[in-house]
Amino acid sequence: MKKIGILIILSLTFQLNGQSTSHEEQIKTIYNKALTEGKAYSWLDHLSNKIGGRLSGSLNAERAVKWGKDELESLGLDRVYLQEVMVPKWVRGTFEYASIITGPGMSMNVPVCALGGSISTPSSGLRAGVIEVKSFDELEALGEKNVKGKFIFFNRPMPADRINTFEAYSKTVNQRTQGAAKAARLGAVGVIVRSMNLRLDDFPHTGTMRYGDLPNNMRIPAAAISTNGAQLLSSMLSLNKDLKFYLKLDCKNFPDVLSHNVIGEIKGSEFPDEIIVVGGHLDSWDLGDGSHDDGAGIVQSMEVLRLFKEMNYKPKRTVRVILFMNEENGLRGGTTYASVAKENKEQHIFALESDAGGFSPRGFSFEANPSQFEQINDWKMYFEPYMADRFELGGSGADIGPLRNNQIVLSGLRPDSQRYFEYHHTANDTFEAINKRELELGAAAMSSLVYLVDQYGF
Amino acid sequence: MKKIGILIILSLTFQLNGQSTSHEEQIKTIYNKALTEGKAYSWLDHLSNKIGGRLSGSLNAERAVKWGKDELESLGLDRVYLQEVMVPKWVRGTFEYASIITGPGMSMNVPVCALGGSISTPSSGLRAGVIEVKSFDELEALGEKNVKGKFIFFNRPMPADRINTFEAYSKTVNQRTQGAAKAARLGAVGVIVRSMNLRLDDFPHTGTMRYGDLPNNMRIPAAAISTNGAQLLSSMLSLNKDLKFYLKLDCKNFPDVLSHNVIGEIKGSEFPDEIIVVGGHLDSWDLGDGSHDDGAGIVQSMEVLRLFKEMNYKPKRTVRVILFMNEENGLRGGTTYASVAKENKEQHIFALESDAGGFSPRGFSFEANPSQFEQINDWKMYFEPYMADRFELGGSGADIGPLRNNQIVLSGLRPDSQRYFEYHHTANDTFEAINKRELELGAAAMSSLVYLVDQYGF
Repeated sequence: MKKIGILIILSLTFQLNGQSTSHEEQIKTIYNKALTEGKAYSWLDHLSNKIGGRLSGSLNAERAVKWGKDELESLGLDRVYLQEVMVPKWVRGTFEYASIITGPGMSMNVPVCALGGSISTPSSGLRAGVIEVKSFDELEALGEKNVKGKFIFFNRPMPADRINTFEAYSKTVNQRTQGAAKAARLGAVGVIVRSMNLRLDDFPHTGTMRYGDLPNNMRIPAAAISTNGAQLLSSMLSLNKDLKFYLKLDCKNFPDVLSHNVIGEIKGSEFPDEIIVVGGHLDSWDLGDGSHDDGAGIVQSMEVLRLFKEMNYKPKRTVRVILFMNEENGLRGGTTYASVAKENKEQHIFALESDAGGFSPRGFSFEANPSQFEQINDWKMYFEPYMADRFELGGSGADIGPLRNNQIVLSGLRPDSQRYFEYHHTANDTFEAINKRELELGAAAMSSLVYLVDQYGF
Repeated sequence: MKKIGILIILSLTFQLNGQSTSHEEQIKTIYNKALTEGKAYSWLDHLSNKIGGRLSGSLNAERAVKWGKDELESLGLDRVYLQEVMVPKWVRGTFEYASIITGPGMSMNVPVCALGGSISTPSSGLRAGVIEVKSFDELEALGEKNVKGKFIFFNRPMPADRINTFEAYSKTVNQRTQGAAKAARLGAVGVIVRSMNLRLDDFPHTGTMRYGDLPNNMRIPAAAISTNGAQLLSSMLSLNKDLKFYLKLDCKNFPDVLSHNVIGEIKGSEFPDEIIVVGGHLDSWDLGDGSHDDGAGIVQSMEVLRLFKEMNYKPKRTVRVILFMNEENGLRGGTTYASVAKENKEQHIFALESDAGGFSPRGFSFEANPSQFEQINDWKMYFEPYMADRFELGGSGADIGPLRNNQIVLSGLRPDSQRYFEYHHTANDTFEAINKRELELGAAAMSSLVYLVDQYGF
């Protein structure tokens, strides 16, 4: 008697929650497939270990484009194509070197690398005194008389007390992007920037820098120094403010070259004109193999469409994966894609980017209006069993940013951020730093979100 | 006018939320100090790199006891003392070796290690055929006629589709703990157990096994094989079921020896008889240096009391840190502590254990009654900004388990579990696998929870 009562209640619950049970089942299938027969990890193995670092304009970037197109074609999508993008071409060259010189015959090497976009030093290198600053205000206060003829050493560390390390990054990255232009205007001969890294280690971290409208003849070379190197330079300066720094860089900017976004899609069965985008960027910096930044986002995005095909899930709306070119030093892939979409009057309802590393996913950030965000929050319950239910308003992703308008919802996968800046833009961003399950959980979370958006639209 | 209005509202909010603002500030201070001037990481560096693996009864375990006592004494606590614990002593010996033999002169080595507590093989090793099973049911169905004189190879993998990897572990670990006793009763000569590892790699994972009431003369040696080794053995068996396996182990059980729990406390200022415990286990397996299991929990627990002293926070209740001895192969530290506490009629209101690795904390599990859990859930808001707000009912920790009664609340720190079983009980559980920030965030989350329990009691 008791048993029958329970059965009736259970079956009633099932009836009432029929709709949501079915979503739960779909999402469970997504997760099971991603974790037990996923392809993200072996794709990334190939991209990282067989192709490697793939800076825009490089031969490797072109190999990555071909690989991405071939792999997407093998999935049996409705359409796979390349979109032409003109990209900047900057080449690091063969030789980067720096030392701290405290007296005749007394010098010690420190790990440096050119910042992306920097000009080279003279071929004999640059030798000059060093002024350490923590901020642009401090730099401006020094004025031309103190700065002229010197290296400016930007040494503001990422603040360790931020829980979200991207916040710590945003508090310091202007030293790298704008430092050279600011110092050059005051007559500096070069800049040395503390690497954007919360850990003390020996890896210099590259990343983009911009001269802006600074005339060519005023441009100065810019290098990153490892965090250990920065600590050393700072402490040696405190003992001897007259020490010299020697820097030699061999990098060069070339004219723009042709490259491509790689695009694949499954046509929507009910609303083919409503487009859902999922993507990451295919280019990477040249020092490591770009596994976290952003090989992870590439293979996770590809995995979304692969899982849908595997599950025989036919989306109502058009689901499009984009392997964006040139996020790192130009964002030309993202801007090109958005402008073509606008020309073609395409209606994008949602875009999701993964570009924060292949770590354990904790949730998503959203650029959405209040009613859209309310709808999204109704889906949190589906992500709770997978511990990916932190939904918050906030920035999404650089490549999808140019799609921003009053209608579209933009979103970014938000993995645990603690380790990201130990790998970001440096030689140890390699496949060994990727955990298979963490990568797969990210792909599953993204697939689940795209599935729900496809089911409901906005 | 508008500005004044806002000010009045802000100040009103502050008044109304006066209490919680103050907790928020205390917790912010805890996090800031843990992340910018924490000691957990350098402590762990010492414990892992200067002492190393510290199996109960070993010289290293005694060095760890002395180190723990010295460090706690340096904190200026109200009381630091050792508690005597008799512990099992098992020694791996100098030589572990296994190979798969497919014919005369045709053999290949596979990575194995003795399971903790196993007897050795004969000094010339053991050579026998192999029967692969996935479950005890399968073993029982084979019966004595098929098992006698053979190695039993337990090869049920951890299921990859569980989000919480501890759940996957619980589905497979009985192969390691009970496999030898079950196989021995059917006449097997030895057991080979697939390592409890979700990743395919070459590390064999040790861990405790028990013969139970099996008579001495029926006991058989038990070894773990790496996951890659297990895959290889399984596929070779599918080609040749008559292959032989050779195993040589050199391990030995000795009589119990004297060791210690290390205990330190800050006396409560208002309710000194209400005791709050925080701890982890000081012993570890012998293959790595035990950084994740459980050096991390040790230094995080010590950090709780250090941070309180640093902040000049004087707890109302007595806060006691316990570095438990012998969690891995006997739990004698935990049982001894609980029985002494009972004898002394001590009133423990809360115990928190960290023994799930030094990874990014996601929250806590609790063993609590509904009204206690309701109270605890009111504190979730304090952990939300630190992304450590997943509170759930569930197991806490092995060492604090013996304190369980109807009154006490037990809790376990719950870090992200994805990577844990790649390091658990194996040679790569080393300091290099620890991320400083993740470790510190765990210590801060634990300190914050202990702070709130101290403020409110139960």
